Amino acid sequence: MDVDAANDVVVRRILDAHPVLVGVGRALDVVPGMRKDLILHAGPPVTWDRMCGPLRGAVIGALLYEGMARDEREAVELAASGAVRFEPCHHHAAVGPMAGVTSASMPVYIVENRTHGNRAYSNFNEGYGRVLRYGAYAPEVLDRLRWINETVAPALGQALQRMGGLDMKATIARQLTMGDEGHNRNVAGSSLFARQLAPALADCGLARDELRGVLRYLAENDLAILNPVMAACKATLDAAHGVTGSSVVTCMARNGTEFGIRVSGLGDRWFTAPAPVPKGLYFPGFREEDANPDIGDSTITETAGIGAFAMAAAPAIVKFVGGTPQDALAATLEMYEITLTENPAFAIPQLDFRGTPTAIDVRKVVRTGITPRVNTGIAHREPGVGQIGAGLVRPPVAPFQEALRALAELVSP
Amino acid sequence: MDVDAANDVVVRRILDAHPVLVGVGRALDVVPGMRKDLILHAGPPVTWDRMCGPLRGAVIGALLYEGMARDEREAVELAASGAVRFEPCHHHAAVGPMAGVTSASMPVYIVENRTHGNRAYSNFNEGYGRVLRYGAYAPEVLDRLRWINETVAPALGQALQRMGGLDMKATIARQLTMGDEGHNRNVAGSSLFARQLAPALADCGLARDELRGVLRYLAENDLAILNPVMAACKATLDAAHGVTGSSVVTCMARNGTEFGIRVSGLGDRWFTAPAPVPKGLYFPGFREEDANPDIGDSTITETAGIGAFAMAAAPAIVKFVGGTPQDALAATLEMYEITLTENPAFAIPQLDFRGTPTAIDVRKVVRTGITPRVNTGIAHREPGVGQIGAGLVRPPVAPFQEALRALAELVSP
Repeated sequence: MDVDAANDVVVRRILDAHPVLVGVGRALDVVPGMRKDLILHAGPPVTWDRMCGPLRGAVIGALLYEGMARDEREAVELAASGAVRFEPCHHHAAVGPMAGVTSASMPVYIVENRTHGNRAYSNFNEGYGRVLRYGAYAPEVLDRLRWINETVAPALGQALQRMGGLDMKATIARQLTMGDEGHNRNVAGSSLFARQLAPALADCGLARDELRGVLRYLAENDLAILNPVMAACKATLDAAHGVTGSSVVTCMARNGTEFGIRVSGLGDRWFTAPAPVPKGLYFPGFREEDANPDIGDSTITETAGIGAFAMAAAPAIVKFVGGTPQDALAATLEMYEITLTENPAFAIPQLDFRGTPTAIDVRKVVRTGITPRVNTGIAHREPGVGQIGAGLVRPPVAPFQEALRALAELVSP
Repeated sequence: MDVDAANDVVVRRILDAHPVLVGVGRALDVVPGMRKDLILHAGPPVTWDRMCGPLRGAVIGALLYEGMARDEREAVELAASGAVRFEPCHHHAAVGPMAGVTSASMPVYIVENRTHGNRAYSNFNEGYGRVLRYGAYAPEVLDRLRWINETVAPALGQALQRMGGLDMKATIARQLTMGDEGHNRNVAGSSLFARQLAPALADCGLARDELRGVLRYLAENDLAILNPVMAACKATLDAAHGVTGSSVVTCMARNGTEFGIRVSGLGDRWFTAPAPVPKGLYFPGFREEDANPDIGDSTITETAGIGAFAMAAAPAIVKFVGGTPQDALAATLEMYEITLTENPAFAIPQLDFRGTPTAIDVRKVVRTGITPRVNTGIAHREPGVGQIGAGLVRPPVAPFQEALRALAELVSP
């Protein structure tokens, strides 16, 4: 088995992928394998007893949201009882930022990879502060989530249908010329998203206060497009998964307890290690001791060659995650050391339009000792609190080493 | 008279200025000194017989638009007759891109400098292709202009009023972290503009097709915010004009025949020289022989320290005006040589958040021989055609030399 030849196939699939945001649907209706008694979560598999605070908080919130529990105590009992199941979003062609919790009745964005025909899904972004994805579940958190899911999501779905979809590959490319890296910084993309959707939204027959509300949701949330961007990355990488012999990473994700990867040539197996705590800037009143270990599927962006891999395109981000603009350039330059190609569709103006470093090779990670860089939000370690900062993190090298060993066993005669 | 002390006052006024887009009005009602028989134009004063093709074309269009002429022949006769007057926008606290033609019934953006109380004005941006500001005046050009002026402008005026205005200082600052330089590249600013106005527009009681039309105008025009940005720069620099002894340039403008400057300490006097032809990239089918000499008031952006002075913030712009991202950094760095200060409100991430080079000193221009850099659109030299490219231009040094001589006469005992 020729690893390089397999990787060539994977690289071609990643570069050829053409993700388009085609619409919105209810998770139960559109996410493959979704069930009423199933809660999807970020990262590799994890049982209730090993779940971190913010993930537990988000699960409690989802059970309350679905009417499966009447209060926190009931929700905790139910979660621990085994009567609800927990599975990674990644097992269902889905991704979710931070806790990533997605339950049956929640709406999801639908991204179609026009080249390879596969689809990927992501839940809706709630904005800032006390939100479910950071483990908050107070009544006002769930009220806002309900409004987003029941008013914003169907309207955006209608508008996307009228527009014939939104080209996510072109949108991400444009974001990178506008100071976004597509993970922690999505203000340009979210502005383009709002601007492009607005005329179509005006045609959806919404009541005036609903229309204003939806437009305000888009106007006030600089991360509105993060979830479609993540689904676009997932649709890209799912098409590149499952190529026998390939050493390319097709998924990196964290559940707040463990960090895990999957590799194209190694099937559905996860390679995991304890998740580290991010280094970063904390909101007033919080510090590193309050921080939960790294959590979320949003590392799908780095896996697809954007996010921290495209830091050079987003020098202003250092005001939020720490460091200097020079560090931002260095971050991208370093990632070329562990990737197989440069994506010409995602050109970084600051590097003379060099393509983003793309297709992480576990062999290169192990050989160089350079682990992928990741931008991330920071959740409080207790359930119910929410976001307390943003920063940078390096995943542990062990999962890459283990994956390489597994690959070696597989490809050796 | 102490030039340095005078310049300190001017610099303080520029840095302290706080332009806010407060609304929209009809030129006749709000622009100081506006009259029905008056056509405002870009650049220093110019008579009909010396006007370039695109400016003549825009004047013809304005006379047709105002119903003062029934056809091109009548418009040309009227323009030559002396029965309509031509004055620079700059004599009326106004600015307009390219031809800058503004007639009595046209709507203008109103920008208020909250620090110093003065106001500045700019007409509405028509988007791309065959448009009045590039000298086109075909019936479809005037139909579209009428729709913008009669449907878009009042709606944006209402929305701005509901919002309590839009902070242009904050908006420009944000644009510079999003790959805009605020002159040739305004896609981020225009996206923010659209996104912020949309919820307020939904509240203005517009018919559905009007609302969709206005939102589409904002969605499709990457230069929509250019005119408010220019008015913001004008409001800033007008507050810094008229400080006895100051050698700071408070206006650079071109009418397509001449380039001219005004200097804070030299009153209303213009210092002019023939306008050069820009170097740049041409649309298919056009070349430098087709180009009109440089035209427009949009150099107010460079005069205020953005535009070409902030090129380092906009590396992707080189795809449209020529050059490399390294040239973009060099452009900004060079402009520090001829300016007195750095504007901390306008921080350039690519230069480690150094403020934009601000307050052009005619002494420094003459001493170094470095003339200001300018980004610009390129108009066809014939009336009625339109935009044929975009590029870079250096104004002639003579007006700076003459201004310095005039200042020396004034300040010498």
